[in-house]
Amino acid sequence: MRQFIILGHEAPTTPGFSLSDLAGGAGRLDVLCRCVNAGLFVSHGIREDSRVHLVLNDEYTIRFDGSTAKRLYPTERAVASRIKGALESTANAIGHQPAEVSPGVELYRMGFNSTLESVAREGTIIELHEDGKPLVSAEPPADPVFVLSDHLEFTDSETAVLADTAERRLSVGPEILHADQTMTVGHNWLDTEGYQHY
Amino acid sequence: MRQFIILGHEAPTTPGFSLSDLAGGAGRLDVLCRCVNAGLFVSHGIREDSRVHLVLNDEYTIRFDGSTAKRLYPTERAVASRIKGALESTANAIGHQPAEVSPGVELYRMGFNSTLESVAREGTIIELHEDGKPLVSAEPPADPVFVLSDHLEFTDSETAVLADTAERRLSVGPEILHADQTMTVGHNWLDTEGYQHY
Repeated sequence: MRQFIILGHEAPTTPGFSLSDLAGGAGRLDVLCRCVNAGLFVSHGIREDSRVHLVLNDEYTIRFDGSTAKRLYPTERAVASRIKGALESTANAIGHQPAEVSPGVELYRMGFNSTLESVAREGTIIELHEDGKPLVSAEPPADPVFVLSDHLEFTDSETAVLADTAERRLSVGPEILHADQTMTVGHNWLDTEGYQHY
Repeated sequence: MRQFIILGHEAPTTPGFSLSDLAGGAGRLDVLCRCVNAGLFVSHGIREDSRVHLVLNDEYTIRFDGSTAKRLYPTERAVASRIKGALESTANAIGHQPAEVSPGVELYRMGFNSTLESVAREGTIIELHEDGKPLVSAEPPADPVFVLSDHLEFTDSETAVLADTAERRLSVGPEILHADQTMTVGHNWLDTEGYQHY
């Protein structure tokens, strides 16, 4: 399975934001919506082996699961609407029990550390960093977990946690890309492993 | 220079569409907006050596030029708003003279054939096709021009024109990606040429 954890540092934790102002009043929720798109969708289909975890302001994590998601569309507005719905269900997320928002979408009362700890059991944590080894010359692990930040840098404490947990530090190339673009390149890296030999 | 031509088969040619219904009433304009984002933007910056040409319903072409674009933001809604502005200026596009919409954004009264002919003089036309040679094992040309379709397949006549014009036929990999994801992979292919040797 391929998993992506994206840290939304200014993301909303209440549903009162406007779907028409995602980049402004909603704390750059547009960035996180594009990450869900990049993580789950291909042309006319969904990646069933992929999960996207959006960490909202270190308070909640919304998990989008490609294997069970339904009626999810790859536009920023549609994904934001689903996030709004999730934030209307926070009262149903108790302890580590998630609130089921819609098929394939769950809200957890968990910040970055708890989400990372939970997901780390299922795969190999990869920190994407401009100083890492280039993807093009690295071998993919079996169950990669990519950790990315939104439009802001990782904080010092996030960097410290990642230094302890990440088994690999990789770079997409000489350009610093948006998180969603990085995810698309990551998927393509996994998709094309060995592809030149076909 | 890197250029991208994207065919919007159902795209609007008048400005009356709603910015809140890009995937529905606006003929999947969301797809084209994501292509502008993928073509021009990197993290905290713009690709100055990149141009994106959106062909709207074979009637108009809107050109976004990374070297001169200003106050352009990478959200679907912001790009769609710029397209709406362009479609309010169609009366100013006379013959092959474009209407200047805003810095770096011009509207041409040109369909696919005229746009392709014009751009082909400036680079090597690449058709992206699932049966093409994998990007990962191909050498990039100096001035690539990628031609892509929106959510619909190329029509028979577009396919015929491309067969006559394209010098290369390449594939991003075994998965069929959205047009914007394909552009991101194409940029990364060019970005990382020789990168493993650094």
